[in-house]
Amino acid sequence: MSIRIGIFGYGNLGRGVEQAITQNPDMELAAVFTRRAPETLKIATPGVPVLSADDAEAMKDTIDVMVICGGSATDLPVQTPALAKLFNVVDSFDTHAKIPQHFEAADAAAKEGGKVAVISAGWDPGMFSLNRLYGNVILPEGKDYTFWGRGVSQGHSDAIRRVEGVQDARQYTVPVPEALEAVRKGENPDLTTRQKHTRECFVVAKPGADLARIEEEIKTMPNYFADYDTTVTFISQEELDRDHSGIPHGGFVIRSGKTGGGASHIIEYRLQLESNPQFTSAVLAACARAAYRMNAEGASGCKTLFDIPPAMLSMEDGASLRKRLL
Amino acid sequence: MSIRIGIFGYGNLGRGVEQAITQNPDMELAAVFTRRAPETLKIATPGVPVLSADDAEAMKDTIDVMVICGGSATDLPVQTPALAKLFNVVDSFDTHAKIPQHFEAADAAAKEGGKVAVISAGWDPGMFSLNRLYGNVILPEGKDYTFWGRGVSQGHSDAIRRVEGVQDARQYTVPVPEALEAVRKGENPDLTTRQKHTRECFVVAKPGADLARIEEEIKTMPNYFADYDTTVTFISQEELDRDHSGIPHGGFVIRSGKTGGGASHIIEYRLQLESNPQFTSAVLAACARAAYRMNAEGASGCKTLFDIPPAMLSMEDGASLRKRLL
Repeated sequence: MSIRIGIFGYGNLGRGVEQAITQNPDMELAAVFTRRAPETLKIATPGVPVLSADDAEAMKDTIDVMVICGGSATDLPVQTPALAKLFNVVDSFDTHAKIPQHFEAADAAAKEGGKVAVISAGWDPGMFSLNRLYGNVILPEGKDYTFWGRGVSQGHSDAIRRVEGVQDARQYTVPVPEALEAVRKGENPDLTTRQKHTRECFVVAKPGADLARIEEEIKTMPNYFADYDTTVTFISQEELDRDHSGIPHGGFVIRSGKTGGGASHIIEYRLQLESNPQFTSAVLAACARAAYRMNAEGASGCKTLFDIPPAMLSMEDGASLRKRLL
Repeated sequence: MSIRIGIFGYGNLGRGVEQAITQNPDMELAAVFTRRAPETLKIATPGVPVLSADDAEAMKDTIDVMVICGGSATDLPVQTPALAKLFNVVDSFDTHAKIPQHFEAADAAAKEGGKVAVISAGWDPGMFSLNRLYGNVILPEGKDYTFWGRGVSQGHSDAIRRVEGVQDARQYTVPVPEALEAVRKGENPDLTTRQKHTRECFVVAKPGADLARIEEEIKTMPNYFADYDTTVTFISQEELDRDHSGIPHGGFVIRSGKTGGGASHIIEYRLQLESNPQFTSAVLAACARAAYRMNAEGASGCKTLFDIPPAMLSMEDGASLRKRLL
């Protein structure tokens, strides 16, 4: 019997989960839940009901795992604990500083419901976190480096759009090649914010706007750009739509350290993602499988990728995995 | 209380585990077991007994995990099942084709003893396998690539030493840069053995030996060299000892694939290891911690890194890991 998946929220992530299910033959899409009027939403999978978010509880017995595809700022802190009382759930909560409190809330709710809640699945937090963990346990004496990019930061793009006179914008976070190479060579540099990443801004100005003022305002914006070497390139809306409509991202997690005998080692994990939300959705789908299985084995409460035996993520059985991939 | 570790076999790996314990304050070395005469063996840790391999059973209640540091060809197939009846054990069994049968033997023994046996810990099998697994679950539609090197292959070095007229040798396995770049660019090439790796041989010939014949014999050796572009460089014993005494290794595991929505992604895991055995030993030590904990929670039988919740490998607790690394 397939694992029956519910998708809660149908934006980029929700669509990505729907697409991921097509690659995982042990799963089926059972329903999509939306806060919009359900009849206005057209989904890609034929024959699957679109329901109001308010009607989720009625589907309690026909959905094995609810994948919650809301945003971390305001949606998930409410939705994940509420839904974890009723369903096994998975989310991609990515506000690093608030993970401990989100974990506690999801844990209490999931335990109350006898369900498993997997939070913070994706790539950072997610696969990047896993690689930091594995790197730390193998090389307890060492340094962690995370570089992001080249990729689109939605938050920074939004920040530029709020500048007066800006019509549209796209911001790329880019690792500094020299810093990356120094880390890869085992030099263990101490790197400032500015030394690790540059920020490239492609900006469409409104007609008649003061370009010099816009550029200055972006480059000096605290938290977002002031601590970085930032470039601002003005382009037309047509160019932005043509050349910058993708949502690529990725980056590097590197652990550089010495083993007890004194030898130096570098562990590097790198992602090159053509679509940030599609990749995140693929991780969510695999975690949905693990949530279902762990709950079927009697587990309840909040879990992260740190707690999931890797084989639980796979549709292959243990013997096949050992033969084919070990 | 510390986890009391026994080391069974005191070669490069055993010494590496001893060194790894110094980096893991929740572990202590309880005893070293050897097939040599114990009184002839000097270990690095003061005050720790060196005992005969035959006396292991007597230490059943004073060792929490036995790390078995024998070879995969003849030692581990015997030692791991024998010791898994008495102890939680960890080994680095690396004969890929025989993992299923080694797993079955270790599983039966460990279940009989109510212990946990972690097999095939290290980097390949081990961390490379884990990355193949994670890559496959995220990108079910894709291709796996493993490149080894630049690093020393002991088996190939030994094969060269068996050629008549050879006094000593060191062989490096080297990924072909063009092949690696093609994979990283998402070209998904089909690569032959020859296209993936080259083999560099540094050979010390005995006085008066026929160098041309040695070179020809190496380059045409079936299985080992005939399928590769192989270079043979004759050097002096002094040069070999001076420039080629390390045991570096490493390589790349790459998963290249598409998510359900059609976007392309590349997941790359890279190791640059100054000492192959020291790194393997560090993985063994982390797996010893997990074996101990899983057994303390009631588990028994054979496990691999595929079955170990990553957090179980760490000396930090869950809350600390989530705060610091997630």
